[in-house]
Amino acid sequence: MITGKNYIGNVLSSLGKVTFKTFNPQINAENEIVFTEASNIEIEKAINLATEAFKTFKTISGEKKSLFLNEIANEIEALGDELITTYCNETGLPEGRAMGERGRTVFQLRSFANLVKEGSWVEASIDTANPKRTPIPKVDLRKMLVALGPVVVFGASNFPLAYSTAGGDTAAALAAGCPVIVKSHPMHAGTGELVASAIIQAAEKTGMPNGIFSNLNSSGIDVGVSLVKHPQVKAVGFTGSIKGGRALYNMAAQRPEPIPVFAEMGSINPVVLLPKAVKNKGKNWAQTYANSITLGSGQFCTNPGLILGIKNTDLTNFIQALSEEIVKIEPSCMLHPNIIGNYENNKAKMLIQKGLQTVANLSKEVSTNYGRQAITTVEGSTFLTNINLHQEVFGPFSMVVQCENIAQLEEIILKLEGQLTGTILAETEELPKHQNIVNALQNRVGRIIFNGVPTGVEVCPSMVHGGPYPASTDSRFTAVGINSIKRWVRPFSFQNWPNELLPNELKNENPLGITRLVDGKLTSSKI
Amino acid sequence: MITGKNYIGNVLSSLGKVTFKTFNPQINAENEIVFTEASNIEIEKAINLATEAFKTFKTISGEKKSLFLNEIANEIEALGDELITTYCNETGLPEGRAMGERGRTVFQLRSFANLVKEGSWVEASIDTANPKRTPIPKVDLRKMLVALGPVVVFGASNFPLAYSTAGGDTAAALAAGCPVIVKSHPMHAGTGELVASAIIQAAEKTGMPNGIFSNLNSSGIDVGVSLVKHPQVKAVGFTGSIKGGRALYNMAAQRPEPIPVFAEMGSINPVVLLPKAVKNKGKNWAQTYANSITLGSGQFCTNPGLILGIKNTDLTNFIQALSEEIVKIEPSCMLHPNIIGNYENNKAKMLIQKGLQTVANLSKEVSTNYGRQAITTVEGSTFLTNINLHQEVFGPFSMVVQCENIAQLEEIILKLEGQLTGTILAETEELPKHQNIVNALQNRVGRIIFNGVPTGVEVCPSMVHGGPYPASTDSRFTAVGINSIKRWVRPFSFQNWPNELLPNELKNENPLGITRLVDGKLTSSKI
Repeated sequence: MITGKNYIGNVLSSLGKVTFKTFNPQINAENEIVFTEASNIEIEKAINLATEAFKTFKTISGEKKSLFLNEIANEIEALGDELITTYCNETGLPEGRAMGERGRTVFQLRSFANLVKEGSWVEASIDTANPKRTPIPKVDLRKMLVALGPVVVFGASNFPLAYSTAGGDTAAALAAGCPVIVKSHPMHAGTGELVASAIIQAAEKTGMPNGIFSNLNSSGIDVGVSLVKHPQVKAVGFTGSIKGGRALYNMAAQRPEPIPVFAEMGSINPVVLLPKAVKNKGKNWAQTYANSITLGSGQFCTNPGLILGIKNTDLTNFIQALSEEIVKIEPSCMLHPNIIGNYENNKAKMLIQKGLQTVANLSKEVSTNYGRQAITTVEGSTFLTNINLHQEVFGPFSMVVQCENIAQLEEIILKLEGQLTGTILAETEELPKHQNIVNALQNRVGRIIFNGVPTGVEVCPSMVHGGPYPASTDSRFTAVGINSIKRWVRPFSFQNWPNELLPNELKNENPLGITRLVDGKLTSSKI
Repeated sequence: MITGKNYIGNVLSSLGKVTFKTFNPQINAENEIVFTEASNIEIEKAINLATEAFKTFKTISGEKKSLFLNEIANEIEALGDELITTYCNETGLPEGRAMGERGRTVFQLRSFANLVKEGSWVEASIDTANPKRTPIPKVDLRKMLVALGPVVVFGASNFPLAYSTAGGDTAAALAAGCPVIVKSHPMHAGTGELVASAIIQAAEKTGMPNGIFSNLNSSGIDVGVSLVKHPQVKAVGFTGSIKGGRALYNMAAQRPEPIPVFAEMGSINPVVLLPKAVKNKGKNWAQTYANSITLGSGQFCTNPGLILGIKNTDLTNFIQALSEEIVKIEPSCMLHPNIIGNYENNKAKMLIQKGLQTVANLSKEVSTNYGRQAITTVEGSTFLTNINLHQEVFGPFSMVVQCENIAQLEEIILKLEGQLTGTILAETEELPKHQNIVNALQNRVGRIIFNGVPTGVEVCPSMVHGGPYPASTDSRFTAVGINSIKRWVRPFSFQNWPNELLPNELKNENPLGITRLVDGKLTSSKI
């Protein structure tokens, strides 16, 4: 079923000359199918189709969009074993993970389907006219959120389903009414093509205009650069490295018309161990964190890469326990030789930093492409003065910082780069005493966790996945949960517009029965 | 009362060496007071105070913030005649305008006071835990909007009160919980200092931390550049020229940690005259638009600088009537010799464009610094090929484009830069026939108006003041209305946080009685 071609709108196409293959890290060999990179002509065509499709897609009803999104979910499920097998062959991840991620992906699609079917997400707001107001009459103003236009979504290496072709960014953008052009991730181009075929099937079945979705293969950076620089592209979604995300952000900011880039990038997800928690529950936390650090070979953006505690015997015992626990865990396959190559390089660079002590470093022989976990520790003063120690080591790696005292712990947090998450492990009674620590941490993160692990990102309205730079390029938005739709829309006002020509969301009759702010009051009544 | 000094937090300060004076364009002479530019030491101090103040200010209750904002409004009113006189002496604008703008400014402050007192604006969202969920238990997640940190607001030349020191940007940012450092506009530094003194008075009376507000004088660009580049500044608000706004945007995007710049910049606010409206009501519209174009000497960002119609006798008659009406209007004083200098230069550059015909150009002698209105006209094909004709001429100037047909009119709209507003003048029955025109225009603007004028920006929740670039740098936000608070906040999640330590907005008891999304349902009930 996989052709290796691009979807330019609903049509398979392979006009380009550059080809590549995906790689199976479990058997350390290339997969068979040859993928053709999108050519400039195909890129241009995909964007033109998207621009044309936008004219009708942006006004399609929430009900029809929900049918489309639900049908994508159905079609992805209908791909059955082929999708799971392809996923595993292109990532080295186990079948359970593939199935879990598929479940999450279709859940996201169906959540957005429900959101747009219900319809209140457009934040309709109506201020009725008052012709008798003095000194000047009050006009009638009605506002709602409308789609930005064609957007580009970059597939993520570490989430071939949930943050790639039909992942969170795509689902949110389609729900908003934006055509999507996916720059497929080269490590799982086959998985991408299968999912793309599901989207195209769903689009055709539910009568969506050709061009609301395209899937472009590429193994290098050229396709992505062309897409981000194209004047008809109005926003970009990206999940990946700081280097990659920042490059796209810079490119977008330097366009004649700058566009928003929502890049979810690196994070070391600091964990603060308060003294009583270490003393009373250090062993439990050691076990829990050994699992969290190695979950999915540490290939999660919420992987806890930094643990901050106060230097004392309890912390020494915790480090000891964490080291013992983590080496018991069976190593697992990483996504790609490049990923494990980077992991080993970055780990090696870290281990030679002055003052860093390696307390666990799995040395036993493992299968090719399997990631070996490591735990390091360092003094707080050393961490403060060496910025290299703040870098993310993407993989099963973590560092315990032994602070002299609470003041130093706070200083470290204040100087940390922006993060997706921060965690506090504490006895409840010691939390109020350390409000400074909590406040400082809140300022650096998008989500704060009490007595838990940062890995495991619940998909729900109250989730924030994003944070101060460099966790993301715009902390005002989340990448996970239904509110991620806000990245792809802008508010739009109609002034004195004839009622019968307004969108249904804003008509007096409120035909959709949505919740609206009418003259300052939330209501689902008609006017 | 005016000292010419900066407010560094609550303290007047003038350590700098550069001085300047404001100018009274009505009498064409400098005003007396000498203002001292903020020095680097003062800039640094203002930012450090703001950073320190943020630690407490961000957690201050909505009730207390509302007292503060209302008190600012009271203190501004208490400035009485001195404020109005200073305003007029620094802008050449009439007393009526000064009083109207003061009314708008205090209305904005009180609107934000009401918003934060009520409290639901934080978009509290709660997803309760489900320990029994399989395969993994569901955590408790609670989200709300929190302040970004210290922000910088640039005063606008054309709104000395409503979009400067205590204007919309400042009111919104303070309401959000962000300390504000104002880069005062040099043309009305005295007005700025008076309003700053009102803010400081209000802050002291209501017990706000020192540093939540500073007011910095500057006549050049150095102070602004230092502020935007400072690592502790987290966002920027700006109202002004495309050149200035884009320069700040670029600077902010190139920082190690990029920050959002919300710049509201130029706009020519296209007006589409559909054939029946011109035929039946051309004379009325000519009169209405003569007034709109010259309102406040055309010094509004919503000034209608472009009128698009279909070439025929009716349009010729409209142009004739508009020309006749506009020259009847008495010219008025512009804000500053620089503003009128730019107006005359830009108008002159426009008038020599090939194919442009000048149909009205007030030539009678007027007082120094008074702006003379002009109307020009050009063929659609000429407008399409000469990008110079798309530029804003800030002042009482407009251009009527005579299109060959509806297709050309649509093409022109499609090729227009982003705009704050678009207006359709039409008989209601001809609107559905021209859905293409309406759709195209919607895509280029933030607000669309039916049978009205773009000038006059209602301050209400349903207003959108902002639009695709270059109308603003981020069309996802509005600069007017209570939703402008969204520019200065980010969502933040608490996971499994102890109830008693949550902010009041997220506690089970809902002590503030705000509307929250609880497990997917909007409610103001407790949990």
